[in-house]
Amino acid sequence: MPTIGFIGFGEAGSAIARGLIESGLGPITAYDIAYETSDLVQSRAAGLDVALLPDPAHLAAAADVIFSAVVCNEALVAARSLESFLRPGHWLLDINSVSPGVKAEAADLAGRRGANYVDVAVMSNVSSDLARLPLLGAGARADFVPELFPDLNLNYQVVSSQPGDAARIKMYRSLFVKGLEALALEAMMGSYASGLHNRVLESLDVTFAKDTFSELVQRLIGRHAVHGKRRAAELEEVARTLAEIGVEPLMARAGHSRLSWDVERGLQDRFDQDSDPDWLVVLAELESLRQSGTSNDE
Amino acid sequence: MPTIGFIGFGEAGSAIARGLIESGLGPITAYDIAYETSDLVQSRAAGLDVALLPDPAHLAAAADVIFSAVVCNEALVAARSLESFLRPGHWLLDINSVSPGVKAEAADLAGRRGANYVDVAVMSNVSSDLARLPLLGAGARADFVPELFPDLNLNYQVVSSQPGDAARIKMYRSLFVKGLEALALEAMMGSYASGLHNRVLESLDVTFAKDTFSELVQRLIGRHAVHGKRRAAELEEVARTLAEIGVEPLMARAGHSRLSWDVERGLQDRFDQDSDPDWLVVLAELESLRQSGTSNDE
Repeated sequence: MPTIGFIGFGEAGSAIARGLIESGLGPITAYDIAYETSDLVQSRAAGLDVALLPDPAHLAAAADVIFSAVVCNEALVAARSLESFLRPGHWLLDINSVSPGVKAEAADLAGRRGANYVDVAVMSNVSSDLARLPLLGAGARADFVPELFPDLNLNYQVVSSQPGDAARIKMYRSLFVKGLEALALEAMMGSYASGLHNRVLESLDVTFAKDTFSELVQRLIGRHAVHGKRRAAELEEVARTLAEIGVEPLMARAGHSRLSWDVERGLQDRFDQDSDPDWLVVLAELESLRQSGTSNDE
Repeated sequence: MPTIGFIGFGEAGSAIARGLIESGLGPITAYDIAYETSDLVQSRAAGLDVALLPDPAHLAAAADVIFSAVVCNEALVAARSLESFLRPGHWLLDINSVSPGVKAEAADLAGRRGANYVDVAVMSNVSSDLARLPLLGAGARADFVPELFPDLNLNYQVVSSQPGDAARIKMYRSLFVKGLEALALEAMMGSYASGLHNRVLESLDVTFAKDTFSELVQRLIGRHAVHGKRRAAELEEVARTLAEIGVEPLMARAGHSRLSWDVERGLQDRFDQDSDPDWLVVLAELESLRQSGTSNDE
């Protein structure tokens, strides 16, 4: 059985460690940058009988499989701190919520040492049981991950051999979920003052019950390709509505800019005004706009 | 039977006029600022046998019920141009998609002349048949609107006696719908380049099928009150993900600012970290933050 360790022993790391230990996969070791200063890290480790090690070198010596579970902006720092101690046979399972570019860079570091790197995206809140978390994996040997935990029946899907692709799905999913949270805050803060918050939501229940989320998104993108300009203009009125009661229209303004971005680049001119096009045709046109924008910027 | 007229004879006005005429509610008159210069306005009017009048004075003399259906930023200009010709017995049905404040101001204008004003919000795309449009109405005599069209079985609901309240519901609904459109554009533009757009949507279908839209919003607001800071931080990673492939992270950045707004004002400190509070308790706290923000700004 491979030995398991953690770099970063905060909420996520300790929750997963607890689940692994309860499944009989101990003993587990951990290195956390705050191992000497954080009472919380120390008490979590003591409670689980996890040995806190004094540096990445000890961690790499003690563990074959290393979960990286640090705070977001330390993901690359953590990988670098391990780099010179990694060897073939090591598995670095990077569960940090970071951008695909950061994961690809961490994968390069590990790859230069002959170690295995898997970009693992946790597609829900981290609970205590690794086997119950929906996981996506990407990397050259991502398909091997279930064999590292033969006794766990992981809820794990390989996305691709390209580290970063699992993170990519998680990030765009996150944009929808947290973006909707932001829209909800802004719209509810706006409507609560006049007691209309429930009526706003009721009117949306009717509309959104008709389709799956995918279908809704596809329909919105098709409509946008024909009516984008008018729809953007309406967000200006929404921004005014919010400003009238002292709510800064952050999402309304950004939405206006987003909807106007392709309008200003002529997207709607490429489509017949009589019917909404298929969303995939719209995405292909947007991709050509993105590419020309990228090359212009360089 | 009251006579019907339109100020503004663009797409929306002419579509509704067509439906009314087909229901036998003619003859109809209209004034449009472009009545002498726009071939489109002239041909629409000619096609429907609608008399184009040369000024608001003639319109007010010819019509008891006047629909205002101009371009958004002209709504108040249109109301002002009619003001001195309005009298008791007139009904101004303001179907423009404008902010509640603009509608309240237009209501004041009409009220000073003793005319009736109804803030009418069209809660879907304007089609040709007034009777099939979902309508909300707000104003002192909003409940009388169905009696203006006794032969039509209107899909019409009174919101309140306060002009602006119908617009308010429409605007916050619109923030969700067009905001989601903006999120969709940004997330799909981001993921299409790596061919992962369908996987992003599939993962959301699963999550969003669990609840009604109201329930989803309520859950997001409850979670935000506990985990807002971490959730905001994740949008920074999303912004980085977009920037890595040259998509300007307009929605991701605005979402980060929106989620951080109450974090910076201590919202999360007011809640126990162990379980998500009821969304209405969160909305009440947000309302107190909004009010203190508004008074500070003044």
